[in-house]
Amino acid sequence: MDFSSFLTSLATSFIIFVVLVLVFTWLSRKHSNDVIYYPNRILKGLDAWEGGRRTRNPFAWIGEALRSTEEDIISMAGVDTAVYFVFLSSVSEDFYSYVVFVNGLWFYHWQLFFSCKLKTTTFVEFSHAKSPRLWAFLVATYWVSFVAYFILWKAYKHSSKLRASALAEPKLKPEQFSVLVRDIPSVPHGQTRKEQVDSYFKELHPETFYKSMVITDNRKVNKIWEELEGYRKKLARAEAVFEASKTIEKPDGTKPTTRTGCLGLLGRKVDTIDYCNEKIKELGMKLDAEQMITIKERQLDSALVFFNKKTAAASASQSIHAQNVDTWTVMEAPEPRQLIWSNLSIKFYERQIRKYVIYVIVFLAIVFYMIPITFISAFTTLDNLKKLLPFSKPIVEKDAVKTVLEAYLPQIALIVFLALLPMFLMFLSKTEGIVSESHAVRAASGKYFYFIVFNVFLGVTVGGTLFSSLKTIEKNPNQIVPMLGRNLPKNATFFLTYVALRFFVGYGLELSRLVPLIIYHLKKMFMCKTENEVREAWAPGDLGFATRVPNDMLIITIVLCYSVIAPMIIPFGVIYFGLGWLVLRNQALKVYVPSYESYGRMWPHMHTRILAALVLYQITMIGYFSVKEFYYTPFLLPLPILSLFFAYVCNKHFYLGFRFTPLEVACKSSKEIPNMESVFQAYIPPSLSMDKFEDADQFEDAQSQTS
Amino acid sequence: MDFSSFLTSLATSFIIFVVLVLVFTWLSRKHSNDVIYYPNRILKGLDAWEGGRRTRNPFAWIGEALRSTEEDIISMAGVDTAVYFVFLSSVSEDFYSYVVFVNGLWFYHWQLFFSCKLKTTTFVEFSHAKSPRLWAFLVATYWVSFVAYFILWKAYKHSSKLRASALAEPKLKPEQFSVLVRDIPSVPHGQTRKEQVDSYFKELHPETFYKSMVITDNRKVNKIWEELEGYRKKLARAEAVFEASKTIEKPDGTKPTTRTGCLGLLGRKVDTIDYCNEKIKELGMKLDAEQMITIKERQLDSALVFFNKKTAAASASQSIHAQNVDTWTVMEAPEPRQLIWSNLSIKFYERQIRKYVIYVIVFLAIVFYMIPITFISAFTTLDNLKKLLPFSKPIVEKDAVKTVLEAYLPQIALIVFLALLPMFLMFLSKTEGIVSESHAVRAASGKYFYFIVFNVFLGVTVGGTLFSSLKTIEKNPNQIVPMLGRNLPKNATFFLTYVALRFFVGYGLELSRLVPLIIYHLKKMFMCKTENEVREAWAPGDLGFATRVPNDMLIITIVLCYSVIAPMIIPFGVIYFGLGWLVLRNQALKVYVPSYESYGRMWPHMHTRILAALVLYQITMIGYFSVKEFYYTPFLLPLPILSLFFAYVCNKHFYLGFRFTPLEVACKSSKEIPNMESVFQAYIPPSLSMDKFEDADQFEDAQSQTS
Repeated sequence: MDFSSFLTSLATSFIIFVVLVLVFTWLSRKHSNDVIYYPNRILKGLDAWEGGRRTRNPFAWIGEALRSTEEDIISMAGVDTAVYFVFLSSVSEDFYSYVVFVNGLWFYHWQLFFSCKLKTTTFVEFSHAKSPRLWAFLVATYWVSFVAYFILWKAYKHSSKLRASALAEPKLKPEQFSVLVRDIPSVPHGQTRKEQVDSYFKELHPETFYKSMVITDNRKVNKIWEELEGYRKKLARAEAVFEASKTIEKPDGTKPTTRTGCLGLLGRKVDTIDYCNEKIKELGMKLDAEQMITIKERQLDSALVFFNKKTAAASASQSIHAQNVDTWTVMEAPEPRQLIWSNLSIKFYERQIRKYVIYVIVFLAIVFYMIPITFISAFTTLDNLKKLLPFSKPIVEKDAVKTVLEAYLPQIALIVFLALLPMFLMFLSKTEGIVSESHAVRAASGKYFYFIVFNVFLGVTVGGTLFSSLKTIEKNPNQIVPMLGRNLPKNATFFLTYVALRFFVGYGLELSRLVPLIIYHLKKMFMCKTENEVREAWAPGDLGFATRVPNDMLIITIVLCYSVIAPMIIPFGVIYFGLGWLVLRNQALKVYVPSYESYGRMWPHMHTRILAALVLYQITMIGYFSVKEFYYTPFLLPLPILSLFFAYVCNKHFYLGFRFTPLEVACKSSKEIPNMESVFQAYIPPSLSMDKFEDADQFEDAQSQTS
Repeated sequence: MDFSSFLTSLATSFIIFVVLVLVFTWLSRKHSNDVIYYPNRILKGLDAWEGGRRTRNPFAWIGEALRSTEEDIISMAGVDTAVYFVFLSSVSEDFYSYVVFVNGLWFYHWQLFFSCKLKTTTFVEFSHAKSPRLWAFLVATYWVSFVAYFILWKAYKHSSKLRASALAEPKLKPEQFSVLVRDIPSVPHGQTRKEQVDSYFKELHPETFYKSMVITDNRKVNKIWEELEGYRKKLARAEAVFEASKTIEKPDGTKPTTRTGCLGLLGRKVDTIDYCNEKIKELGMKLDAEQMITIKERQLDSALVFFNKKTAAASASQSIHAQNVDTWTVMEAPEPRQLIWSNLSIKFYERQIRKYVIYVIVFLAIVFYMIPITFISAFTTLDNLKKLLPFSKPIVEKDAVKTVLEAYLPQIALIVFLALLPMFLMFLSKTEGIVSESHAVRAASGKYFYFIVFNVFLGVTVGGTLFSSLKTIEKNPNQIVPMLGRNLPKNATFFLTYVALRFFVGYGLELSRLVPLIIYHLKKMFMCKTENEVREAWAPGDLGFATRVPNDMLIITIVLCYSVIAPMIIPFGVIYFGLGWLVLRNQALKVYVPSYESYGRMWPHMHTRILAALVLYQITMIGYFSVKEFYYTPFLLPLPILSLFFAYVCNKHFYLGFRFTPLEVACKSSKEIPNMESVFQAYIPPSLSMDKFEDADQFEDAQSQTS
């Protein structure tokens, strides 16, 4: 890719971004789009617009985002999101501190650049072999690393504080009073599962045990409940349609009809409202019966145990209960909304086996996915394209087409390619047997990170020249580090464009929300009949950390690894994270609704991966300098070791405070015993909820038993 | 080494053993030796001899050892010793099960052996290359592994049961009510350390916190106390001497005198009794003052915290207390007698650094110790000796000398060599900052195990031919496994003699206790004047697991690795562990007094190392078969993986139950609150003990504060 196509790419991206921002400014002022641009405020019962609609400056959102405090974020979007902003701001701060330092070193080079003497691919690369100035770059590598340590430490400390103060809040959080017990041994003769659990915990925690809830196999009852809900929706819809058909000409309206067969297309034609009412009644009775059966007979070997004190629950969740450690395993209970019920019944060793099997699958996926990516990056040079697809020659040789293709083809191929993956990884993570949504998100994010770094970063870097250098690796496996150092500079422009594309187009689309807007309007126009259906059509979803975080990590890896070789990438990095901070601040305050709260447990995960990127950077630097035959390259060797040591200290100092709830933190909030019944009720899944029955007491007895 | 020297070695060892047993039978019947042969019974206040002295069969000890139950062992020698016997009996059981199976396969070979057709070094080695009978040996390898899994699992289960029932005993154990807190942050302004600890724990454990004891720097007070004790002993001794000098001729006796200068050799001559009395008075006052200062001013950042419930202490010791995990670190308190006070003040990161530094030192010691061992095993062939020390030629060429030298020289060199090491390793382990004696023993034992396996087993096996094969390794590092397989058979006779030497001479000496007996009688005759001094002279010590366990592990490694190649070693293994069981059973019941009780925490340590030996065996087998160019060698590859999997399952199922006290176990014993003051008192070190003061209350207040 030459210099003009690089500029074209940048310019196009920037224009798209400007257009998207203008579109956002225009569309977000329309009242009918409020549910797309302000759903979080609406769901929280706030006014969509703080000021009046007319008086507002079109760019007011920027000011609002900048003025918003951490407390605003926590109250609007939770601690996880606040921690994510700690991450964004520290990374951009981090990169910003490099701009001054590293670009200062490049002064001479910039001069050349601005005097247009350098327009070839080398403009981003420092090519003075054995230059004495390499010393300065060695110092820069140290500077980059130490600033990273300093900022990471500060960020970890801050996240830890955020987590602790959120956990110590006096607001009732059911998960703080509960622990999850798995792998309960088989029921002794003459006892029910319930009695077994109750007597076990009552003996070990006589003062603090409140109640237990045995986990049941809800698949069957969930199915009936979903069917019932389906008919309820259908009924509401039919009634809405019926109301709408009552025009002045036809005051009685037409009753909607449906067919009873497959998908409502075949079978007998019936009156929808009557049919639904009948079905609802029938299913309601079936549900009642099924609920009874589920509660009594489908008990699994897991339970939720409730304590009347936070410290008791925190300390119980950290203690070994049984002598055979693979029975009565205890852990902190996740929030009710993020508990994955279907995974609770998986047995101890099955979980372990699943975990390792999935690690192997992910490993294979990472390794063998490299093959198609390598092909793509080898294909998507225009010369190759012309050679392999000769019929395309007349098209791609037109200047305009050529420039655009050269600028975008590789990146778009990559992005599309990667869009298919997250769902697969999320599925794998849930299959591991993880019990909480947030943990599954972290697991998927971790897998995605490895995938993306190995395949996109290393794949493109090494793979772009893989066909030529495959033989070198085969002959000499310890040539990987120097090869990395050799190949890195060649791909600098590719990654520069990649980063630019991500922040201009990516954040432009994020801000303008064009896709959800279009989907919403289409749905509203053609499908939604009831208020509930409309509400579902604009449900904003959450920030989607499972893909957002690893993508950010990829950018960090790229920017770090190129920071010394091609320092032009650092401002790009600053823009990526700075713009990201601004746009996502707006989205977090006004759009997204978090679907769970894990009190910042994402941070250690991100911290480790930033450090991994840093180590990768330090290793590629060693490779880069040794390729330059720089005599003092060994001076860089302490850096990766230092990074590992830093990781170790951070881990020892902070990590367990994220893994568990320290007693100190659990103890801080009010010491009164809360309304324990509401804690218990919070965990009853909707399909088993009895609140519609008047004689709920009889089930209460089967489901739980007050101590 | 040829066959005749092997037989000579065996015969000599056996004769030594018989002589030692006879000596034991003769000496142990004398009343004056009771304190050497029955000290444990005497210290426990039991009659040394259960039956009358005269009526006893000289071999009654064998019957007594065989009849003794596990409960006897636990009551006489503690759970740790009982677990050690579980280890001995399972290993001998394990090996016994091989005898039948593997030796059956060798039937043909034995025939040859007994018909005296095989008298060369190869008699122990199966040398039919590519024989179809190798199949049978592959099956034998599987058999050996699976029997080992089965027996190890049973033993782990049994040890776990022993541990649980010992922990659940109603007898008061102060350590079950205490936790050790380290890394307490600096004292906030206006509080004492004591108040800080008390208020912190009282807040987190309001119902169960009883009291705390701040750890002090006792070096100075210990020194004074030791000096004081020294003078007390001297006084007692002088009085005894004075009493003894009152003969009928000289009814007033002569007062013993001493010199006040260096070592009692220089300086003014004074009356010892008066001098000591004066010194004791002086030091007593100094001690009082120092105790006050220590308690008030030399407080460190550690404390012992006492709870009034076992479950509270167990659960507190497993919970993260502070948000910064490297402060307020909490662990189970060790027994008062095994608490290493001087290590308590070492800071968190210093401990980590010390640990890794010591790992590096041990690693270096293991690797570079190999060099002398290699030299020894290369030197100690007679041919080398003759070549290198030509003057020794006339001596070593005499037949008798030659045979003895050939038989013993290498083994004795090795044994002497290894005797120097344990103290060094124990010193290193204590330097790590470990707080309990039992943990330090385990750490030293682990280091010794690695040392002994790498240096004795691998060193002799590979090193015996190292000079010839060093070049092969250098050229081809992945040739290590086949080389092991190739070299193993060559050293079979060496290890056969080594094992025989260990059990005949080792256990013979163990049983006869010749060395302690001689030392005791010498001391009694020339040095001991008072009852206390005599008591110190016969103090039996404990079983010394730090060296005993790794030596047993070495034997297991040797026997396993040779079990298929040279199955004659298996009966030797059975004898080693069988005889060991018998002899040590006697010693545990009558001689040794355990110096600590860790409730079987040695078992997981031994279990892991037995498995490591098993994996080493499986790998050498792969090497051995592949050297034989046996086509189906890959069939052995699943075995090491299976072993790792077995280790993983055992670890998950049992390990944490040994690492911590499970709540279930802590909860089992009586629920009454014990005499907490005695728990507290148990932890006061003798140098700080105030019981001789009448106004102890005033110190009580400084040292602790009742909640």
